[in-house]
Amino acid sequence: MEQLPKRLRQQIDFALEIDKLKSIYRQNLVADGSRRENDAEHSWHLAVMAVLLAEYLPEPVDLLKVMKMVLLHDVVEIDAGDVFCYDPAAAVGKEEREQAAAERIYALLPTDQGQELKALWEEFEAGVTLEAKFAVCLDRMQPLLLNFVTQGGTWRIHNVSAPQVRQRMAPIREVSPELGEAVEQILQEAISRGILKE
Amino acid sequence: MEQLPKRLRQQIDFALEIDKLKSIYRQNLVADGSRRENDAEHSWHLAVMAVLLAEYLPEPVDLLKVMKMVLLHDVVEIDAGDVFCYDPAAAVGKEEREQAAAERIYALLPTDQGQELKALWEEFEAGVTLEAKFAVCLDRMQPLLLNFVTQGGTWRIHNVSAPQVRQRMAPIREVSPELGEAVEQILQEAISRGILKE
Repeated sequence: MEQLPKRLRQQIDFALEIDKLKSIYRQNLVADGSRRENDAEHSWHLAVMAVLLAEYLPEPVDLLKVMKMVLLHDVVEIDAGDVFCYDPAAAVGKEEREQAAAERIYALLPTDQGQELKALWEEFEAGVTLEAKFAVCLDRMQPLLLNFVTQGGTWRIHNVSAPQVRQRMAPIREVSPELGEAVEQILQEAISRGILKE
Repeated sequence: MEQLPKRLRQQIDFALEIDKLKSIYRQNLVADGSRRENDAEHSWHLAVMAVLLAEYLPEPVDLLKVMKMVLLHDVVEIDAGDVFCYDPAAAVGKEEREQAAAERIYALLPTDQGQELKALWEEFEAGVTLEAKFAVCLDRMQPLLLNFVTQGGTWRIHNVSAPQVRQRMAPIREVSPELGEAVEQILQEAISRGILKE
């Protein structure tokens, strides 16, 4: 593909580089419990859920921006790996590793496009704008649903407790009281079914 | 999750139903050649490529609509299965099976949302609007790239020839001469490398 125009070749190089997300496995299982989910599948699922659930936000959101964010939020894991959210030891140095990954990977793109998408990742990480808060909300809620339908999934495997999950889910209520309430109901049901310890 | 508000429960039911796309495997391989790609990964990849390549369209496109289309264009395969694009026998009755699948799956959603998303799938299938044409273009171009970087991938496994691939790629040039030209260059390179027969 050497003869392609440089800009297009850079875009294709990036598209092929991020194909590696299909081989980066997360802790949580897919819904039928047969195996762990990878980052590409997870990102796809968040983008669909963004479409489905945007109506629960208190004000209109830039949905296209949210979708770009969730589709690419895990790209840094190509170099930095997936860190289990309930393992504080694994999180040491995470920020620096991910920053270095972002520098390398977004530099594959034409400068303007790389800067735009890297800025969206930084916005996601900062979690200040409504778009970022909603993206974070989806990133917390989706594995909750998968853990619930896989009889506890990661919670059971890693002995995670309800207070830990509740703390992890706290940002959801801040962006949408309705979704926050729903998450609490699902947690209560998980506890009463014995798939999440109190 | 019985106690959740009905509308939200329907949305979550749909989100969990489409998790099945993570287990529907396509013919083409992922970029490292280690295994076949599934529909969820494929749909994610198209959505990212939509962001990267929209600039090659002759006029502005509704990118949010394109992304919704590509994220959900394969949902019908949950019931209808993946049909290999170079196998005409397998395509018999495909349209009816996919229509029935769309009726069932989009009916899981609240009526308004199901209708909106089903209409987008129909728009994609019709391939008339610029958004649908671009979505189709991505759906053709992404496996081409994966076949190219996996030394012929599906082309070699199924003995597919350059004229067949060229015909399959024809819609790309119609929506973007630049992308069409790039695809032809990649085909030429595949032939000269001996990973695609003339």
